[in-house]
Amino acid sequence: MAAPARFRHLDSSHAPGQQRAGARARAGDRPVDFSHGDVGAFPPHPAAAEAVHDAIAVGATWAYSPYRGHREVRSRVADRLGELMGLAIDPDRHLLVSAGTQAGLYLAMSSVIERGDRVGIVAPDYFAYRKITEFLEAQPVDVTLHYREHGRAGEIDLESLTSALDSGVRTIVFSNPNNPTGVVYEPSHLLRINATLAEYGAFAIVDQLYARQIFDGRAYTHFAGLDGAADRTLTLIGPSKTESLSGFRLGVTIGPEPIISRMETVQGLVTLRAPGYSQAVLTTWLAEPPGWLDDRVAAHQRIRDELMAVIQASDAVMARPTEGGSYLFIHIPAVAGDLDAFVESLRVEDGVTVTRGTEFGSFPDAVRLNFSQDRTAAVAALRRLVDRAQRW
Amino acid sequence: MAAPARFRHLDSSHAPGQQRAGARARAGDRPVDFSHGDVGAFPPHPAAAEAVHDAIAVGATWAYSPYRGHREVRSRVADRLGELMGLAIDPDRHLLVSAGTQAGLYLAMSSVIERGDRVGIVAPDYFAYRKITEFLEAQPVDVTLHYREHGRAGEIDLESLTSALDSGVRTIVFSNPNNPTGVVYEPSHLLRINATLAEYGAFAIVDQLYARQIFDGRAYTHFAGLDGAADRTLTLIGPSKTESLSGFRLGVTIGPEPIISRMETVQGLVTLRAPGYSQAVLTTWLAEPPGWLDDRVAAHQRIRDELMAVIQASDAVMARPTEGGSYLFIHIPAVAGDLDAFVESLRVEDGVTVTRGTEFGSFPDAVRLNFSQDRTAAVAALRRLVDRAQRW
Repeated sequence: MAAPARFRHLDSSHAPGQQRAGARARAGDRPVDFSHGDVGAFPPHPAAAEAVHDAIAVGATWAYSPYRGHREVRSRVADRLGELMGLAIDPDRHLLVSAGTQAGLYLAMSSVIERGDRVGIVAPDYFAYRKITEFLEAQPVDVTLHYREHGRAGEIDLESLTSALDSGVRTIVFSNPNNPTGVVYEPSHLLRINATLAEYGAFAIVDQLYARQIFDGRAYTHFAGLDGAADRTLTLIGPSKTESLSGFRLGVTIGPEPIISRMETVQGLVTLRAPGYSQAVLTTWLAEPPGWLDDRVAAHQRIRDELMAVIQASDAVMARPTEGGSYLFIHIPAVAGDLDAFVESLRVEDGVTVTRGTEFGSFPDAVRLNFSQDRTAAVAALRRLVDRAQRW
Repeated sequence: MAAPARFRHLDSSHAPGQQRAGARARAGDRPVDFSHGDVGAFPPHPAAAEAVHDAIAVGATWAYSPYRGHREVRSRVADRLGELMGLAIDPDRHLLVSAGTQAGLYLAMSSVIERGDRVGIVAPDYFAYRKITEFLEAQPVDVTLHYREHGRAGEIDLESLTSALDSGVRTIVFSNPNNPTGVVYEPSHLLRINATLAEYGAFAIVDQLYARQIFDGRAYTHFAGLDGAADRTLTLIGPSKTESLSGFRLGVTIGPEPIISRMETVQGLVTLRAPGYSQAVLTTWLAEPPGWLDDRVAAHQRIRDELMAVIQASDAVMARPTEGGSYLFIHIPAVAGDLDAFVESLRVEDGVTVTRGTEFGSFPDAVRLNFSQDRTAAVAALRRLVDRAQRW
């Protein structure tokens, strides 16, 4: 049976988590899977698991929730997230709990993108934006990200954005901090983006999954909090990254009531609801003990610094220092045209799994690393990558 | 922002679990939500929760799995399900773990149905088959189910099936036991269905969620085990119903390798994977202690018998005795044309929540009950329904 047309562009075999593990790293080399964070190195706060244990013990009332999530969970999250984002969030109208932030993204895009639409996608950015757009039989339109000049603020190219909007784009999808480059957009830049989108009446889907992990004391701006943005923005956020709670499959979307309702309807077809017991995790989210988050961010900043020292000591590789989140996007000019072979050798011979740059747009000389790992193992693994790049 | 065209037919406000709870049942009346099973009345086997606790404690290796599910989970389920179904199931090729059986259904239908396709859907049958078909911008084609004559075997009308296939239908979706009527198809009937589908080269998606809950010692036939069927059948199954494990969001799909691969690709967009820790539940599934399942089935059969006695004592309502699963589809001729008002009065005044028949096709005089409930409460709630039906 032939695959439906919407499969035309799909292939997930190189997606993060889908590659086989490192096969035969040299003795003494600890394999590192940089395709996602290591929950062993950065475990969840224990209160999260306890909340799930308690919910399972309670049983019936936690097993089933309305499609948009348990009322008491939505209520607590709305309060805490409202404070974080500087927004008034009504738990009954503006918030949906999904089976992971990825599911929130799929529901969001399904709810605003029409077949044949043109959709603005920042390049590079999280690979699923493009794939879901194509799966919905819509047309991705690249919007350029400036991130290579390290002294200069990372910015979405406004001319590129305007040109996309002029070509008919009415929805734009982007992450902040940017995945894979780690760029955090400056407030003044987001104000300009917001003004441009407002001028065209365009809708924004903003993935803020790493919004709580910002380095160097940098300012972080929640896009939906900007003037007039809340009515035409969906914000995706959740506890899967910094908080290491990915295994529970929970995401939260904040947005205008009509779109949240539509998302709930689609969720009723796709997964019915987020896992009932897991939802209890969210009662502990954004309420970690004082210092817990600061320590976690500092630990990641330290890993970033050590990895950047390795990168900057070599002229075979280059990367912009991560400003927020756990990603480094490393350019390796020598592997352009030969990226798959490099990634495969690195995985099989060095026990180092990375995600190829072509997953994020047209970046045939780049790889992405999630450095939420054991620090020593990560530094050693990056040295193996740099060694191989130098020999390539 | 206008809803995309695929939302044209969608409305989930009357779906099971979406209605508000009963508002002011008379004093002494315990509210009963018949829209889904009561996990409090029939709790999961304790080994399931223990397996999840252990997985959370282990941490990292359980948090993330390949999109199609943890290898060791797939391996155990393939063995046990292969034995149950009488099929050789390769855990690496024929099996996918999804975030609930509903998610399995969505992935399955997304993977075989093309926009514009005609899709055969048994009427009555689970409401989401029709809704997902419409969401995929395909065309549902009703296939008649004979279930009203109680002395006669429940059967899909073969003329109606052939006529659907003649009109261009190449995929048919049905549940066995049927949801909502509780019909279990006889082996000879499924042989005829299989022969007919084979003749047209048509594909089947068979929802066997209640395959382990068959009453009266009746025979149960796994459709995919019939001659030649395995290559053109997806079987949906999981531990959400009889085993009361819905709160963990786990489903299993068995099918031919190319379609399972496609489903994995779609899952990579929709939820990435089933919840990592929850997947541990499946290591305990189909391996409950001797007698556990028999006791559970017997307890449900007893509830069915008591409810049927109430139904048969009244001439205001009628229902076919459930042959498998936990559903009763009750026809109430007096409420035809007035079904929503009846359902709402029942909910608000009697504290009895049911799902309206119109969710399952054109059944404006019927309601569905999930009787996996406390037996005494269920019988009392059904009496309130019958009383109201008599007064209507």
